[in-house]
Amino acid sequence: MDKLIKLIKKFNNPSVVGLDTKLEYIPQHIKDEAILKYGNNFKAASFAILSFNKKIIDEIKEIVPAVKLQMACYEVFGAEGIKTLEETAKYAQSSGLYVIFDGKRNDIKSSMECYSRAYLGKTKLLNGEEVEAFSCNSLTVNLYLGKDTLAPILNDCEKYNKTAFVLFKTSNPSSNDVQNIKTKENIKVFEKIGQICENLSKKTIGKFNYSKIGAVVGATQKEELKSLREMFPNTFFLIPGYGAQKGNAFDVSFAFKNGIGGIVNSSRKILTSWQKNNIKEQNFAKQAKEEAIKMRDELNSYIN
Amino acid sequence: MDKLIKLIKKFNNPSVVGLDTKLEYIPQHIKDEAILKYGNNFKAASFAILSFNKKIIDEIKEIVPAVKLQMACYEVFGAEGIKTLEETAKYAQSSGLYVIFDGKRNDIKSSMECYSRAYLGKTKLLNGEEVEAFSCNSLTVNLYLGKDTLAPILNDCEKYNKTAFVLFKTSNPSSNDVQNIKTKENIKVFEKIGQICENLSKKTIGKFNYSKIGAVVGATQKEELKSLREMFPNTFFLIPGYGAQKGNAFDVSFAFKNGIGGIVNSSRKILTSWQKNNIKEQNFAKQAKEEAIKMRDELNSYIN
Repeated sequence: MDKLIKLIKKFNNPSVVGLDTKLEYIPQHIKDEAILKYGNNFKAASFAILSFNKKIIDEIKEIVPAVKLQMACYEVFGAEGIKTLEETAKYAQSSGLYVIFDGKRNDIKSSMECYSRAYLGKTKLLNGEEVEAFSCNSLTVNLYLGKDTLAPILNDCEKYNKTAFVLFKTSNPSSNDVQNIKTKENIKVFEKIGQICENLSKKTIGKFNYSKIGAVVGATQKEELKSLREMFPNTFFLIPGYGAQKGNAFDVSFAFKNGIGGIVNSSRKILTSWQKNNIKEQNFAKQAKEEAIKMRDELNSYIN
Repeated sequence: MDKLIKLIKKFNNPSVVGLDTKLEYIPQHIKDEAILKYGNNFKAASFAILSFNKKIIDEIKEIVPAVKLQMACYEVFGAEGIKTLEETAKYAQSSGLYVIFDGKRNDIKSSMECYSRAYLGKTKLLNGEEVEAFSCNSLTVNLYLGKDTLAPILNDCEKYNKTAFVLFKTSNPSSNDVQNIKTKENIKVFEKIGQICENLSKKTIGKFNYSKIGAVVGATQKEELKSLREMFPNTFFLIPGYGAQKGNAFDVSFAFKNGIGGIVNSSRKILTSWQKNNIKEQNFAKQAKEEAIKMRDELNSYIN
């Protein structure tokens, strides 16, 4: 996690912009250009998203350390969408940003090895040569299948200096259904997952005292942020649900200790700020930067 | 689930071939052709997989009702891999097969809507037109995030006559870690998930008495197959872990009642049968068919 934490310190900004780009967020002039160029198809839609993302990246790269790409928003456009995912990640990484793929992947070990190679490691080609499929630094992972899920991920994180974030306690309204089930030892399911992760990842603890396996903990979960920070001192948090999902700076401040401990994601509120504030569409990316600066300052007013 | 069950009855075969295609399963002559055509890159590897898959489909389409595509095996080749996923699915569906995408997708509602559109519903293009991204009949889903995950899936399953399979109890060695945690009401986590699914999907029960939301239950879990069949009479099971993972026909027979109730997946054992039995590589697909016939007959000897 050292690489990400260094970037957070460099920008004095523990936040990540979520590129969960949807067509309705994109200014009309970009959509028109895409249709003119490619017609009305997956390619045009994917091109519009890529153009939008690049302009956002150009503006935010000087103030935020990372972007998070919600994979669902790209998969919905098939192979063309995945090409835009590839190109957005490449552009973001070459702009100096730490790139987190939010795919919540999970499977048995042999399939998890494929996911791990795809996003954290390298893919073997027909002649045995190994190459990177995506310019990705980190992947979100769902541990419902238990330890098996984590072994290949941990392996590639060590080998290629990557990270992963395991779902502990998510930000959505029904997160209690499974995650808060109390075990007979009187801990909750998400705490049990926390124990598995903190145990398995001990050997990857870096110079800031955090391991390469972080946790997803929703910004809407103040109490859990507080208790999990105590329980798992070596686990760095990725905190979604800020802004549009009503998490706020005071609540998320409990994830931090001595100024570090987490990175807070905001997507919709930043990407749609030009619409919410009636800004000229040509200035959509500049407005996203303004919103990101506002978020940074809000966070820092509680954290430092 | 009616469409799938009808196909199972038509072929008298409650099994699905898993196209979890890896490069090491593919005969050399296909790999050579791919390299000759495209060089050594993602395109060549993806072309080899597509050629392999099409030949397997040509052979098995007359004896099995369905194929299951492990998405990890395609994602590892980036956008080119997803193109092969698209084309394999299209080819399988136009060959009359029921197509299950094994992606174990999960997320909060707004992102889950994108996954659901991608694989079960339709994608909105720039001018508002809606088109299918993938030729897919069914998607596997992980419910660690609770009810929210299921709402968009259920909606698209109803609207487009699709199905989904939610992970209850998986086939891997560490599946107990989270899934078998006992709640204070003395049921297990996977049973709790079962309750959520069976409740929410009641209104989609079809003429064979199964709802559109099925369950993934591993072939390695004999006791659970037995108890879950009793607990959830309207939930159809997708049963992985047969063959290479050591599940057997006797064990999985407990998932069935009056001859129906589940579909059993085998991947590796079928795809690599030509290697295991020292068959000439030109006959790899015919051998896969032989193995699939063997599996069908084994299953039927216990089920009927």
